[in-house]
Amino acid sequence: MLTLHTIAELRAELGQARRAGRRIGLVPTMGALHAGHRSLIRAARGQCEVVVVSIFVNPTQFGPAEDFERYPRPLEKDLDACRAEGVDVAFCPSVEEVYPAGEVTRVTVSRLTEVLCGPCRPGHFEGVTTVVAKLINMVQPDVMYLGQKDAQQAVVLGRMVRDLRLPVDVVVCPTVREPDGLALSSRNAYLDAAQRRQATSLYAALTAARERIERGERDSAVLVEGMRRRIEGAGPCVIEYISIVDAEDLSARSRLSGRCLMALAVRIGATRLIDNVVLDVPECAR
Amino acid sequence: MLTLHTIAELRAELGQARRAGRRIGLVPTMGALHAGHRSLIRAARGQCEVVVVSIFVNPTQFGPAEDFERYPRPLEKDLDACRAEGVDVAFCPSVEEVYPAGEVTRVTVSRLTEVLCGPCRPGHFEGVTTVVAKLINMVQPDVMYLGQKDAQQAVVLGRMVRDLRLPVDVVVCPTVREPDGLALSSRNAYLDAAQRRQATSLYAALTAARERIERGERDSAVLVEGMRRRIEGAGPCVIEYISIVDAEDLSARSRLSGRCLMALAVRIGATRLIDNVVLDVPECAR
Repeated sequence: MLTLHTIAELRAELGQARRAGRRIGLVPTMGALHAGHRSLIRAARGQCEVVVVSIFVNPTQFGPAEDFERYPRPLEKDLDACRAEGVDVAFCPSVEEVYPAGEVTRVTVSRLTEVLCGPCRPGHFEGVTTVVAKLINMVQPDVMYLGQKDAQQAVVLGRMVRDLRLPVDVVVCPTVREPDGLALSSRNAYLDAAQRRQATSLYAALTAARERIERGERDSAVLVEGMRRRIEGAGPCVIEYISIVDAEDLSARSRLSGRCLMALAVRIGATRLIDNVVLDVPECAR
Repeated sequence: MLTLHTIAELRAELGQARRAGRRIGLVPTMGALHAGHRSLIRAARGQCEVVVVSIFVNPTQFGPAEDFERYPRPLEKDLDACRAEGVDVAFCPSVEEVYPAGEVTRVTVSRLTEVLCGPCRPGHFEGVTTVVAKLINMVQPDVMYLGQKDAQQAVVLGRMVRDLRLPVDVVVCPTVREPDGLALSSRNAYLDAAQRRQATSLYAALTAARERIERGERDSAVLVEGMRRRIEGAGPCVIEYISIVDAEDLSARSRLSGRCLMALAVRIGATRLIDNVVLDVPECAR
């Protein structure tokens, strides 16, 4: 495996592969790799001849009060994980390589970023879309792999790729969970033992809501209220949002039908956790 | 010459050339091609194996009170000009091909767009950067050719390309002028005979200022005042701005030194004209 730090090295390395028509897959990450990331790498490994994992903790997607400084950066462990998964290139650029001196350019996606996590994290998605546009331009992959765990991010980036006519396919891979249902996240490491137990309430609430939908419930407010009660019942927390929206355009759904996204963000102590479930809801019910 | 309308056709056509390592040049235009555009095409023809000219009147770079509707669209004449210049592909996408239904993504460049033409044309540069990012992603050229006539646009797009790490070189070609000095522009067609004569005052003023600089003048305010008097003396007009700025970062220069851009925008009747001169000013003078 090659560990590269500059765009020049990256282009020199990948140029040959590209000209030879080899399929290049990109897994963009902020490091602190867990089994969720590894599932993305395996998907890339299965579909591409060259697998690039970018490891870059992107400053512009963190708010001033957020955890940029303390975000975990276990680089050697991450590189070991990449090696173990058969990654070809680990791309670890410096902040200056991604954001050159004097840079003033941003990529923004409106509307889709104004719901769910958007209002809670001003500037977050602009940071994400800008850095991923840059990473796509640096790596020029044929396919990019994203996790369903960050559902809104996947929708926003998919829209950005389509809108900007970026020549890359986007593959969204299922959320990987702990045996008790907690979605894997680099931020789970912030939880103490009691918070960790409490955190299972997020997926438990989503699962219970899904079961109610399967039994015929279609009223969004009723489902959201049920999830709220379940999560608040599990211990002290701040619910940022629990929403049911159209899975494609993220518009609010008061009555469920079609492809729906149930998504939530909850703070347990200082740790912000998100989770979601997508489901196809048959039109007719009750 | 191929005339293509969709991204799918374009990619199919250019994919082969790209894999064969052939150098692809893009000349992005809004059509109404004149000798200025033709000089860009010739530069591309001289340096690239595949020359693509895009012809697309981009709605998002026109303000609501601007001339989007009446902007000239002599498509057949443009295609003839492309053929005559040995263009390989004329790419003429529909608005829907560039701006797909539901699109919500914009590329913005701050700071550099807040001076010169920026304040007079709110939203203009966002439209330009967004469409050119899309065109670059559609065509995936090795080199893009821009005209020095649109000096600020060239600086802004150069910055965007660098910031977004787009894998394309930018070549800026000299302004092409009528024998009497008027910079070629598709909008010159809007001028009546008297306005056309009057319009020569723009380049005359810039040339006079350059001569004063060569004779030792370094005071920006003095030079700007001289240009203003010259242009206003030539007939009724509205001067939007006359500015002398750093040619790279477009910051104001009260005293000239280094690489300077003298730029101006003047409305004669309903027609907005711009022109500029770049010059290297030796530090020591007077």
